[in-house]
Amino acid sequence: MASEKSRVLVFGGTGYLGKRLVKASLREGHPTYVLQRPENCMDINKIQLLLRLKKRGAKLIKGSVSDHESLVHAVKQVDIVISALSSSNTSTVATQLQQKIIDAIKEAGNVKRFIPAEFCIDPAMMVHDLEPARSLNLRMMDVRKAIVNAKIPYTSIAANCFAGYFVPNLCQLGTLLPPKDKVSIFGDGNAKETDNYMFMFFAAIYLDEDDIATYTIKTIDDPRTINKTLHLMPPKNTLSQNELVNTWEKLFGKKLEKITISAESYLATMKGAHHLIQFGISHNYPIFYKGYLRSIELKEGDEEATMLYPDVKYTTVEEYLKRFADMRPREAWEGRKEVSKL
Amino acid sequence: MASEKSRVLVFGGTGYLGKRLVKASLREGHPTYVLQRPENCMDINKIQLLLRLKKRGAKLIKGSVSDHESLVHAVKQVDIVISALSSSNTSTVATQLQQKIIDAIKEAGNVKRFIPAEFCIDPAMMVHDLEPARSLNLRMMDVRKAIVNAKIPYTSIAANCFAGYFVPNLCQLGTLLPPKDKVSIFGDGNAKETDNYMFMFFAAIYLDEDDIATYTIKTIDDPRTINKTLHLMPPKNTLSQNELVNTWEKLFGKKLEKITISAESYLATMKGAHHLIQFGISHNYPIFYKGYLRSIELKEGDEEATMLYPDVKYTTVEEYLKRFADMRPREAWEGRKEVSKL
Repeated sequence: MASEKSRVLVFGGTGYLGKRLVKASLREGHPTYVLQRPENCMDINKIQLLLRLKKRGAKLIKGSVSDHESLVHAVKQVDIVISALSSSNTSTVATQLQQKIIDAIKEAGNVKRFIPAEFCIDPAMMVHDLEPARSLNLRMMDVRKAIVNAKIPYTSIAANCFAGYFVPNLCQLGTLLPPKDKVSIFGDGNAKETDNYMFMFFAAIYLDEDDIATYTIKTIDDPRTINKTLHLMPPKNTLSQNELVNTWEKLFGKKLEKITISAESYLATMKGAHHLIQFGISHNYPIFYKGYLRSIELKEGDEEATMLYPDVKYTTVEEYLKRFADMRPREAWEGRKEVSKL
Repeated sequence: MASEKSRVLVFGGTGYLGKRLVKASLREGHPTYVLQRPENCMDINKIQLLLRLKKRGAKLIKGSVSDHESLVHAVKQVDIVISALSSSNTSTVATQLQQKIIDAIKEAGNVKRFIPAEFCIDPAMMVHDLEPARSLNLRMMDVRKAIVNAKIPYTSIAANCFAGYFVPNLCQLGTLLPPKDKVSIFGDGNAKETDNYMFMFFAAIYLDEDDIATYTIKTIDDPRTINKTLHLMPPKNTLSQNELVNTWEKLFGKKLEKITISAESYLATMKGAHHLIQFGISHNYPIFYKGYLRSIELKEGDEEATMLYPDVKYTTVEEYLKRFADMRPREAWEGRKEVSKL
């Protein structure tokens, strides 16, 4: 059996999610290939990460997305192709890169499954009315269409919210660390206390990035998810912002001051803000103010990861937060300066 | 004994060398503190590295180089302060940061040893005539003077050449990966073959960055190196460029075409080049064309690491290169494109 494990190629294998996909693939015993891109030849951290992955057993394969022939060659070595090239790029570059991978897979003709670079909220389900998130969503849908047109077997991974970017900061923008004194609550905090329906409006779904990688590798050979979207929806990690804040307060041992942010105020923050903040607001607005994650209804073509793979012990939000629980400021610091503002 | 281990604080503990210093300090059983700087609160890779260091036993301590009081507080927790803040910054920022650490150590008054951010070729020994390397050298000497004036016990670490930046690329600029077909030889390659003196002119000393960290931690409590410079000069890693290239050729199983670069050509490359390339050339010129590392004479105030700590099994250049030995291109690639040019 071990020798029949499908061979996996990861694009973007030195990135934030990509390195986790490579490690998860190796853990599951797949012969695992990482594209070594000449563009990274001056990045010492990426080079040393490649060496560490190689030491763990990954095979490095030369190739560049700007060299079609090299991509076809790389793709021909494997059964499964996973793209973890950044899709948060708000330019069209990310989509173009995906298209080049699709072209190579089509020409190679041997790939049994392609996982495109999504790993976010299902673009087919989420309605993003605001730019720049709207354009990103549309571009991801274009990539899906191109995959279907090329008749490539695929699975889309709807990974919802990366824990690293949403959980420790309690969904605050401008920091990735826990707030010390105050926390902005998106929506009417009072309504949530008394009205279950309103409360649910604010729910989001948080995923430890290592679990995203684990579920992705679990599904690559699974006939149940072919040409479908795999939704990662761990029940314990489907929390309203209030529940998230409460979980932190218990660990931190301190109540935070809650500042309710109305939809108008939230949107007003966009004006003149850094483009990443603008992206964050346009991305998060439908989650926190429209409730798009409150009740995902899985339809034909959707599967859910914790149902298909109940053996995976995912990291809960509480476990994730525990890593930050003693990252508290010394007392003297607190009164003097608001670190989270920096 | 274990409880008497000195306590170590590392500035820049998430950097390229800093993370290695933190790990080496923990390995040696020192209670080890890392400054957690609010400036990094949006850097997910640094935050996750901090969490990994914390998991290994490091204590995170809040502080900012722009907040004197926070530095004094941090410094008061420990016996040893190591600065691994980047000194390759060609602006004066790096020196100013060092000065702020010196001010805090002076006020705290409890520090038994300070290791300033040098970890390069001894600035007191190396004559850099070319900018921008010259200014960096002068600034490092200014920092040394400030340390002496503040009467802070110190050890300077002369770490010579970081392997990651010099060894795999065989000292080529513009890539950190091994060249495939051709290699530039700095100086008169023919002269080296026949003339031992000329040959020695081109020698450099290469250090695995993990070994730099190990030797640094070895020395922090050693009375023999107080107020001295510790030179890291592993005998097996003192090689001419020809010897370095030969070592690679044996591992790679292929002879490279040698292109001799005269001093004039080397210097001419500086014009209009990227500032990092300019820095590299100005830094390397005295090594490869003036032979400043050919025969370091240790004087009063100098110690040598492999003599003081013969128990440390350092990584040889050959062992370092072995990690890259199967990073070779597929044959089809070679004829088509020069990867190292990208």
